[in-house]
Amino acid sequence: MARDKRTAFFISDGTGLTVEAIGHSLLAQFRSEHVEQVTLPYVDSADRVQQVLRRIEKAAEESGLQPVIITSIVSDEIRRQLHQSSALMLDVFESYLTPLANLFGTDPAQTVNVSHGIADNRRYSERIEAVHYAMDNDDGRRVREFERADVILVGVSRSGKTPTCLYLALQFGLRAANYPITEEDMDNTALPKILRPFREKLFGLTIDPKRLMSIRQERRANSRYASREQCEFEVRQVEQMLRRAQIPSLDATELSVEELATRLMSQSGIERRVE
Amino acid sequence: MARDKRTAFFISDGTGLTVEAIGHSLLAQFRSEHVEQVTLPYVDSADRVQQVLRRIEKAAEESGLQPVIITSIVSDEIRRQLHQSSALMLDVFESYLTPLANLFGTDPAQTVNVSHGIADNRRYSERIEAVHYAMDNDDGRRVREFERADVILVGVSRSGKTPTCLYLALQFGLRAANYPITEEDMDNTALPKILRPFREKLFGLTIDPKRLMSIRQERRANSRYASREQCEFEVRQVEQMLRRAQIPSLDATELSVEELATRLMSQSGIERRVE
Repeated sequence: MARDKRTAFFISDGTGLTVEAIGHSLLAQFRSEHVEQVTLPYVDSADRVQQVLRRIEKAAEESGLQPVIITSIVSDEIRRQLHQSSALMLDVFESYLTPLANLFGTDPAQTVNVSHGIADNRRYSERIEAVHYAMDNDDGRRVREFERADVILVGVSRSGKTPTCLYLALQFGLRAANYPITEEDMDNTALPKILRPFREKLFGLTIDPKRLMSIRQERRANSRYASREQCEFEVRQVEQMLRRAQIPSLDATELSVEELATRLMSQSGIERRVE
Repeated sequence: MARDKRTAFFISDGTGLTVEAIGHSLLAQFRSEHVEQVTLPYVDSADRVQQVLRRIEKAAEESGLQPVIITSIVSDEIRRQLHQSSALMLDVFESYLTPLANLFGTDPAQTVNVSHGIADNRRYSERIEAVHYAMDNDDGRRVREFERADVILVGVSRSGKTPTCLYLALQFGLRAANYPITEEDMDNTALPKILRPFREKLFGLTIDPKRLMSIRQERRANSRYASREQCEFEVRQVEQMLRRAQIPSLDATELSVEELATRLMSQSGIERRVE
């Protein structure tokens, strides 16, 4: 625990992914590089809360700064114990369950948060199948399965197609294939023959040639593949190809996989297969 | 829009992933199957808010039920417009920015939420590299790269290794490899030779044989691979192998990839490489 840093604790009785996301987005509004951020998942017993409380008080003492807790614990009992801490408490369930209970006219269920659980097996299988689909259909490996795709990403090598496909599969259950446009496809700027039957499913990723160069340099330093000329040539050809065939696209240079996936869906109108 | 269903809108100026996660976990406390859930990302202009407001009022009219908005919009101006709606507003930024500003003694930055952004290029590259590592090291394909692994998942085919590795890579930047224990490894219950140098990095996934059977049936119906006897045999052998070599493990039967990944990290003490 850093001595002069305030600590923010993201505390959950489940995976902690939700409170962590809330915490990151709130702290991003302040100078969060000065805040030590600690996620504590699976805080679901009296013993575990006591451990956590000791850790929080230790951070307070060592830094001399009041810690922050962002939490979404469901059990009233465990939440009450946590409230004994000297930290600033931002308690999502406490803030929002009462207005929701009034709206719905029923009490909350008090069952542990299953928002990242397996809940519905059929839907869960759909996500897992989508992951395997993305793996099998990475890098244009099995064009014969493109028929089943929800979307087919096209772009130069290392433009971000693979991680975006995997994210679309894991998060939204979408069957996302990808096809790399390689030099053989670049003799002219017509869409490769193999892709033409799937025109409606194609979505392009473009990227700034300088950024592409630096990504490729890390992979194969000083290769032709990573040279400025090659990167510029490939990006230019692919951009022309996308324009000519009127394929919608996104510039991946400044976007994370989460942003690429959600923007792609909102631009193309593709709907998630799982909640 | 269903006629007799209340609608919950998750509204963000970014990807919407955070408010969506908050919304799911709050609504899971009520009978959320009766609630239509709609995520509206990238609401970052006056025009877009007006569209959104119309959509909300339409849902209210058609169902005769007050909608809910869960939102985390940063801009005061856009947030003010959204507050004109007749819906119940749960506004995360409104609730928590003031107490945080008091704590930090500074005003919030009012810059759009970058919690799922690319922000720090070096860290972002680490996630992407981890994804490529997981792809390359799926299914024991490149044992020579196990040296670089943060964790190596072992288990029978279709126990959930691949999606868990990909999630560990995407979410936490961890280099997660996996090695399927196949029949050839099952002559006895000693750890396969190839894995012995990496004993400290191994983590097991087990699964209920009935669930395994149903997963494999979907893949190859009526095969020996998907038979009850084969599934029971493989699971038993792997469980003995893990016990004998004292490899920590999790039962994947009822856990989602998010739960598997976060529990694995909290059990084994492996720390994330990226925030």
